[in-house]
Amino acid sequence: MAKKLITFGEVMMRLSPPGYSKFSQASSFELVYGGGEANVAISCAYLGMKAAHVTRFPDNALGKAATQFLRKHWLSSEHVIYGDKMMGKYFLEKGAVHRPSEVIYEREGSAFSLIEPSMIDWEDVLKDADWFHWTGITPAISEGAAMCCLDAIKTANKMGITVSGDINSRSNMWKYGKTMQEIIPELAKNCDIVITSSRGIQEMFGFGESGSKFQESARELMKRHPRIKKVVRKTRRTISASHHQIQGKIWNGKDYIKSEMLNITHIIDRVGTGDAFASGLIYGLLHYDNDQQAISFATAACALKHTVPGDVNLVSVDNVTSLMEGDTSGAIKR
Amino acid sequence: MAKKLITFGEVMMRLSPPGYSKFSQASSFELVYGGGEANVAISCAYLGMKAAHVTRFPDNALGKAATQFLRKHWLSSEHVIYGDKMMGKYFLEKGAVHRPSEVIYEREGSAFSLIEPSMIDWEDVLKDADWFHWTGITPAISEGAAMCCLDAIKTANKMGITVSGDINSRSNMWKYGKTMQEIIPELAKNCDIVITSSRGIQEMFGFGESGSKFQESARELMKRHPRIKKVVRKTRRTISASHHQIQGKIWNGKDYIKSEMLNITHIIDRVGTGDAFASGLIYGLLHYDNDQQAISFATAACALKHTVPGDVNLVSVDNVTSLMEGDTSGAIKR
Amino acid sequence: MAKKLITFGEVMMRLSPPGYSKFSQASSFELVYGGGEANVAISCAYLGMKAAHVTRFPDNALGKAATQFLRKHWLSSEHVIYGDKMMGKYFLEKGAVHRPSEVIYEREGSAFSLIEPSMIDWEDVLKDADWFHWTGITPAISEGAAMCCLDAIKTANKMGITVSGDINSRSNMWKYGKTMQEIIPELAKNCDIVITSSRGIQEMFGFGESGSKFQESARELMKRHPRIKKVVRKTRRTISASHHQIQGKIWNGKDYIKSEMLNITHIIDRVGTGDAFASGLIYGLLHYDNDQQAISFATAACALKHTVPGDVNLVSVDNVTSLMEGDTSGAIKR
Amino acid sequence: MAKKLITFGEVMMRLSPPGYSKFSQASSFELVYGGGEANVAISCAYLGMKAAHVTRFPDNALGKAATQFLRKHWLSSEHVIYGDKMMGKYFLEKGAVHRPSEVIYEREGSAFSLIEPSMIDWEDVLKDADWFHWTGITPAISEGAAMCCLDAIKTANKMGITVSGDINSRSNMWKYGKTMQEIIPELAKNCDIVITSSRGIQEMFGFGESGSKFQESARELMKRHPRIKKVVRKTRRTISASHHQIQGKIWNGKDYIKSEMLNITHIIDRVGTGDAFASGLIYGLLHYDNDQQAISFATAACALKHTVPGDVNLVSVDNVTSLMEGDTSGAIKR
Amino acid sequence: MAKKLITFGEVMMRLSPPGYSKFSQASSFELVYGGGEANVAISCAYLGMKAAHVTRFPDNALGKAATQFLRKHWLSSEHVIYGDKMMGKYFLEKGAVHRPSEVIYEREGSAFSLIEPSMIDWEDVLKDADWFHWTGITPAISEGAAMCCLDAIKTANKMGITVSGDINSRSNMWKYGKTMQEIIPELAKNCDIVITSSRGIQEMFGFGESGSKFQESARELMKRHPRIKKVVRKTRRTISASHHQIQGKIWNGKDYIKSEMLNITHIIDRVGTGDAFASGLIYGLLHYDNDQQAISFATAACALKHTVPGDVNLVSVDNVTSLMEGDTSGAIKR
Amino acid sequence: MAKKLITFGEVMMRLSPPGYSKFSQASSFELVYGGGEANVAISCAYLGMKAAHVTRFPDNALGKAATQFLRKHWLSSEHVIYGDKMMGKYFLEKGAVHRPSEVIYEREGSAFSLIEPSMIDWEDVLKDADWFHWTGITPAISEGAAMCCLDAIKTANKMGITVSGDINSRSNMWKYGKTMQEIIPELAKNCDIVITSSRGIQEMFGFGESGSKFQESARELMKRHPRIKKVVRKTRRTISASHHQIQGKIWNGKDYIKSEMLNITHIIDRVGTGDAFASGLIYGLLHYDNDQQAISFATAACALKHTVPGDVNLVSVDNVTSLMEGDTSGAIKR
Repeated sequence: MAKKLITFGEVMMRLSPPGYSKFSQASSFELVYGGGEANVAISCAYLGMKAAHVTRFPDNALGKAATQFLRKHWLSSEHVIYGDKMMGKYFLEKGAVHRPSEVIYEREGSAFSLIEPSMIDWEDVLKDADWFHWTGITPAISEGAAMCCLDAIKTANKMGITVSGDINSRSNMWKYGKTMQEIIPELAKNCDIVITSSRGIQEMFGFGESGSKFQESARELMKRHPRIKKVVRKTRRTISASHHQIQGKIWNGKDYIKSEMLNITHIIDRVGTGDAFASGLIYGLLHYDNDQQAISFATAACALKHTVPGDVNLVSVDNVTSLMEGDTSGAIKR
Repeated sequence: MAKKLITFGEVMMRLSPPGYSKFSQASSFELVYGGGEANVAISCAYLGMKAAHVTRFPDNALGKAATQFLRKHWLSSEHVIYGDKMMGKYFLEKGAVHRPSEVIYEREGSAFSLIEPSMIDWEDVLKDADWFHWTGITPAISEGAAMCCLDAIKTANKMGITVSGDINSRSNMWKYGKTMQEIIPELAKNCDIVITSSRGIQEMFGFGESGSKFQESARELMKRHPRIKKVVRKTRRTISASHHQIQGKIWNGKDYIKSEMLNITHIIDRVGTGDAFASGLIYGLLHYDNDQQAISFATAACALKHTVPGDVNLVSVDNVTSLMEGDTSGAIKR
Repeated sequence: MAKKLITFGEVMMRLSPPGYSKFSQASSFELVYGGGEANVAISCAYLGMKAAHVTRFPDNALGKAATQFLRKHWLSSEHVIYGDKMMGKYFLEKGAVHRPSEVIYEREGSAFSLIEPSMIDWEDVLKDADWFHWTGITPAISEGAAMCCLDAIKTANKMGITVSGDINSRSNMWKYGKTMQEIIPELAKNCDIVITSSRGIQEMFGFGESGSKFQESARELMKRHPRIKKVVRKTRRTISASHHQIQGKIWNGKDYIKSEMLNITHIIDRVGTGDAFASGLIYGLLHYDNDQQAISFATAACALKHTVPGDVNLVSVDNVTSLMEGDTSGAIKR
Repeated sequence: MAKKLITFGEVMMRLSPPGYSKFSQASSFELVYGGGEANVAISCAYLGMKAAHVTRFPDNALGKAATQFLRKHWLSSEHVIYGDKMMGKYFLEKGAVHRPSEVIYEREGSAFSLIEPSMIDWEDVLKDADWFHWTGITPAISEGAAMCCLDAIKTANKMGITVSGDINSRSNMWKYGKTMQEIIPELAKNCDIVITSSRGIQEMFGFGESGSKFQESARELMKRHPRIKKVVRKTRRTISASHHQIQGKIWNGKDYIKSEMLNITHIIDRVGTGDAFASGLIYGLLHYDNDQQAISFATAACALKHTVPGDVNLVSVDNVTSLMEGDTSGAIKR
Repeated sequence: MAKKLITFGEVMMRLSPPGYSKFSQASSFELVYGGGEANVAISCAYLGMKAAHVTRFPDNALGKAATQFLRKHWLSSEHVIYGDKMMGKYFLEKGAVHRPSEVIYEREGSAFSLIEPSMIDWEDVLKDADWFHWTGITPAISEGAAMCCLDAIKTANKMGITVSGDINSRSNMWKYGKTMQEIIPELAKNCDIVITSSRGIQEMFGFGESGSKFQESARELMKRHPRIKKVVRKTRRTISASHHQIQGKIWNGKDYIKSEMLNITHIIDRVGTGDAFASGLIYGLLHYDNDQQAISFATAACALKHTVPGDVNLVSVDNVTSLMEGDTSGAIKR
Repeated sequence: MAKKLITFGEVMMRLSPPGYSKFSQASSFELVYGGGEANVAISCAYLGMKAAHVTRFPDNALGKAATQFLRKHWLSSEHVIYGDKMMGKYFLEKGAVHRPSEVIYEREGSAFSLIEPSMIDWEDVLKDADWFHWTGITPAISEGAAMCCLDAIKTANKMGITVSGDINSRSNMWKYGKTMQEIIPELAKNCDIVITSSRGIQEMFGFGESGSKFQESARELMKRHPRIKKVVRKTRRTISASHHQIQGKIWNGKDYIKSEMLNITHIIDRVGTGDAFASGLIYGLLHYDNDQQAISFATAACALKHTVPGDVNLVSVDNVTSLMEGDTSGAIKR
């Protein structure tokens, strides 16, 4: 039977000028929706898992339309709650070669940022789940969001549900009076799987060095926080806005395992590729019995996302396994 | 030489699903910009006047793009100021026949709402102006906006510049601790021209009756506030979302003058038609020497706006005078 | 608690040239999905009911995308089944004024037409339902579809679930060796509510006259088939492809009740308006305690659909009740 | 066997802002092609006739693309010639209700305007033709175009091919040193069928009065120029840019015959409706044996064109006869 | 005088989500038409040859629109026949880098698949032709299609018209009771030119080995079937869905000749590139007197097709010869 | 305070088929505007300079819309003049890899080509300017344009304003009776900065050799024309239509300075990249105190333009300096 994933976080309206137009050239915006955790849930749903996303939208037609996006992409919408009036959103101008993509966020005061722990009954939400996933973006949004996230993790711990956290955060997001160093470690130490980097560990936990060996930082992290069973990292070499290279690495307490490096020579949409990695990791760890295959699956899923427009990875298990097994040809399927 | 108009108010990003699609059907939004006062300024610019709009946008690429919209439509952008981070916006779903258009505002916390009187030097702004126009939306947005508006009116009074106010407001907009009854009369009584209705006078000033004769309320208003020289009203008969009838009326202290009633049988875009009326009135009063022609010009401009997509009236003086003189045929021009 | 509706029938891909372009002008097609019964289910979902649609799609990405359309529009997809390879579809060229819309069907051999009774467990499907609805299109598609439909009706009868049938059919659709006269009466007589016309009764059941009084035919139908409690009719006056008038009528065994006639002067999309009527009727009968309000609700829902692009009626209960109570103004909602 | 029509004239690129946008709002143009005579040929081809259009395009990819438009719409392209560099074009801004459509021509110096009589062998072009049609636009373009037109008419006369001329012209087009009064009568008097109006006769031939009875002017025209067998007129009542009424009238030397007046309440595209009338007249006179049916066919074809986007009438004989026989309902065809 | 090519085969409607969207993201489809043999004919027409395509479409507006596509792209439509009701179609989701393009066919029961030999008079069709071309797709569609193809080849043989066959087929297409091994050799042995590969020869004729030298298989094929004068092969190296390398090879019974390998680093549309190769080969063999130039022309034509959207190669002889002569710069032409 | 640039030249409507479609596939054109000198002005405005462009447009809605494009992109429109009727335009078909972009000009007889020296008061135009820039396209258009350009340069010389000329021209443009050798040197020798190449110097001035060292030709040019202080060159290696390499070089009379070579691997729009180089050079020379930084800034600006759709470079100073300082990663900006 299909495994079930629960995710929690804000979903934003994403508004982009068509093609490679700049903001100053737009007379329309393409509309999709995205948010780190929902991206993971949807990607897992396309891989055949059951998935539900917990979030809060404004109580109007825009909030309903956002929910409809989740439903369309196979998520259960039963745990979406509504209230207040503002939809979080981000504007994306797509770059190419040397020209960077630019993102403008408008999420302060959003319905999600006003979420409170009392609004969610985590025991109910998680009752038939196999996995809970969160990211370091959510606790940065507001104290309420951070507290909900902590509740979720603790409830999952209690219920024996695997917890993964993609813990990297952006310090300039933290505006409600707490720092990421105060909050993230508390959440991360209750995870079974942590996705981060040497720099992430250094920033959040204050040990290791940003430039140091990932394996050492990961080993230390697991020593200090024994619930953590695997520390996972995705490295990206940014040759240009149109050409990246991706590799996945996993430290499982015993071995340091790496995937092949994949070469994405013609990027279509770079947003959400980290989430595609996380979803591939979740699927891989649930469906393969060795970390080598799991990390290869995660990396292949991540690479494929670079060619899918929008925030979410809409590819199939067949697409991922074919690439993971070395077929980089993208040969037409009839 | 062309007369110069100054307007003041918020300009919002307007996001609409294409055609008659509902919000739940949108995969893109058409992007234009609008705001009552800027709509008036642009419409006057298309009628050949000089016009500048005073507003405040977020200090990012979206704010710049909004300014570019004003510039493209012939406004001077020298009095646009930048600061903070959020762009006011509204979402518009276009209705037809019995189905209403629906508007969702997201303007709380916008860059404009955070404007303060110290940010604008009205003597400089108004130095070569002939006319200042404001609407009852602006003082509803925030105390800062209301104070700026009062400053502007008083400065214009001092400098001998004609002031017009389209004073109707929506009580559900007033959230910063003042009511429209506290603020609007103070602004309105310093105007030379007031656009309102019996109901508006009753709501704002507390006299007359909503259902009573407009002429009597207007007479009383002018008696109490002798700076007001003309009270103007636009009546709209809403047969369906696709078919309206429009008539303009003016009380000038002596005569009660009415335009023909115009019949707009196939509405393209109903938003901004009141602003088109105001712009036609300003142009008409400046360019005709009798109120009959001025009100006919205003009404014809208003009618034509119903056939122009977007918030602003892009028609020419020729278009308006042709209709004002009775040619309702819309016969093709080669 | 929300009432639950189950519907059964084919859902087709609908491909239309943009705007009013003719087939010979198309370089793209707009893509939505539609089918009489699913249209009813979705419309009821927008009115706040729970709804699930039972259908069969090809087992490929196109079949999945069709399911995603149902999910997006709030239907449960748990009873969608997959098999075979062809998606039913129809091409729609939209007409105006004197120019008719043209429809080309390609549904022979579709996945749905190959459905067999063994593929559906109706007791499971209907287990928490309040209402089952079918139309005369479904039994015309194939013998398998007709048999599934009969199974559904009989199971619903057994389980005490209300059954409504919109029994009109097109004789040129019946190609599998049965005539509509052989099949439709068997299905119709097990319904609680029948939507038809004098002509429908005459064609299907062989009594009454096409031009005769509806009331008499309905009375006779109920006399012969006592399970039928209400016979309902929608009359349409087709002034042009752009202007229709609609009225609903109901014979409940005692009274002959009519709604107001509604005048749709600027049609946006005429397809699915009969389905909107049926959905309004189902909602109305479930939520009002008199037939006058039910038929008024149905007629108002039908009228509103003429202004919504696509096959399905996406309006809210508020939209319908407002029109039903006489507000035909379509005045903008802010 | 299908009758064959030959037409001669300029075909222009038509560039229009999408929907009802004004020129100042366009960020793209919709591209079709049109020209009075080619419009007639294409419309006749859709009615099942054979048709070829004689014209001249620039010798580049734009000229080729224009030819491809003619081929796509069933015309023979064997008599298209190429030379010089500029494509004639017109820009169309579509109006509505009281707002006029606006047309800007750019055709001076076009490849067609540089045509010379030596470029066309009319005996070859007309060798299996049944009908030749021209309009008063062509001789206005250049002396070369006028001379080609005269050659064509005279050759057709010699070969016994019916000639029709839609002789109205716009005096502001005549810039090459001749007036329309000098040229048009010479062309018109060699026609079998003339489409014009009292005003046209008065302007071109100098007799009758613009406001006088059409029948009398037509009678006089036929008396003076006995080759002319029928004089035909289309009257248009322009209620607004969105609503016209159309009626056809024919004086055949004996009777003055009128069609029904048709009421086009929701105009989609008004351009080319006169050409649709001419094509309906040609088809009608060739396929019916009485003028009443011919003029009714012509008027119905004209009415239908108002609902077809672009310059050309893409409707079928069935569409026209159905309307001509009184079915104004535009009821959907499945 | 221009050489004339006749081709025979199905033309399908091609429906694709815009850009790189996946099927699950589409709310519209871009519409073009394609089919291996018609692709060859159109490409040859753009190279300046005369070309007609023989096919069968449904007898409705969709079939007419498909014919209009052929006419627009310079083909003669005189040998298109109409009957039955279904248009063959394929859905194309465009891939990139590691993500494969996906194709879903819906062609069973199409109007073309119901074609019968009695419907085509090949002597008439081929009467002024210089070349007949077919592919291994056509005989796979239905027995009727295979028989028509055989008739065409034999008639061409009799009339002294060169025959080329691109004989590769997909075994999963053969569903009417024959295998490709039973049919293809019978057709191929009557060809003058065969396009295939070692693997094709092995699969169809049962000799040689898939991995063996092409030259040896080709030599053996020509020995067994002496009408075959040249055996031609295109090799493709699929680096990713966005980057291919192409080389052409020809065995003419004496020499084994190869083109340069061309490197297509940014693929726009990979579909129809094999047909572009075939059309380049036909043109090359007809217009050059040595096989080296012919194969270079074919390979350059093939390479250029990768940059043209749609199924057909719309480039000019100048484009091809420029690349063939080594100018890979794609420098802008003014 | 921001430096002010004045430019002079034709601005054309640019019409392109969407994406990579060929002219024969277009059913719409994307509309932007461009012209070498205005491109420079706009690019400088985006870099923060003040800029005004002097040009002449037709006196109609198309000319107004072109002005609106300039205003939108931050230019002052006070020196735009209107007259005559034709808008210059060019059609652009975008190529890829080996397929060249194709440009078709239609500018003969344009409003700009009819410009006369008396129409511009250069002393007024240049009164607060810091820099005047022209290109070799302008004097090729007409004698009037050449004379205006000479006037501008001489006036600038007199007023002490720096003059730069991008002097390359296309000999096939010169049709009014003068050759570029007669006119360009006269203009160029009055410049402070000349952008050209060895080949340009050889063609225009008749010394040096096309293949020879740039440094020597530049030295000789400065020797002969001592006002010229710097001779600048941009070299482009055209690997394919999708991949170019760019390098800037400057001879300042003392040193021969080169930028890094930049590698643009995925070109979005190649048009206007030379103008982006010129604008970067102007900005660089005004804002840096050494030629190395100026030429690096120019080259980086040029490289970035290849990724911006349209004719003009819309990037910011930050974008340019970041690339100039070696960050080629195009990493996303949040």
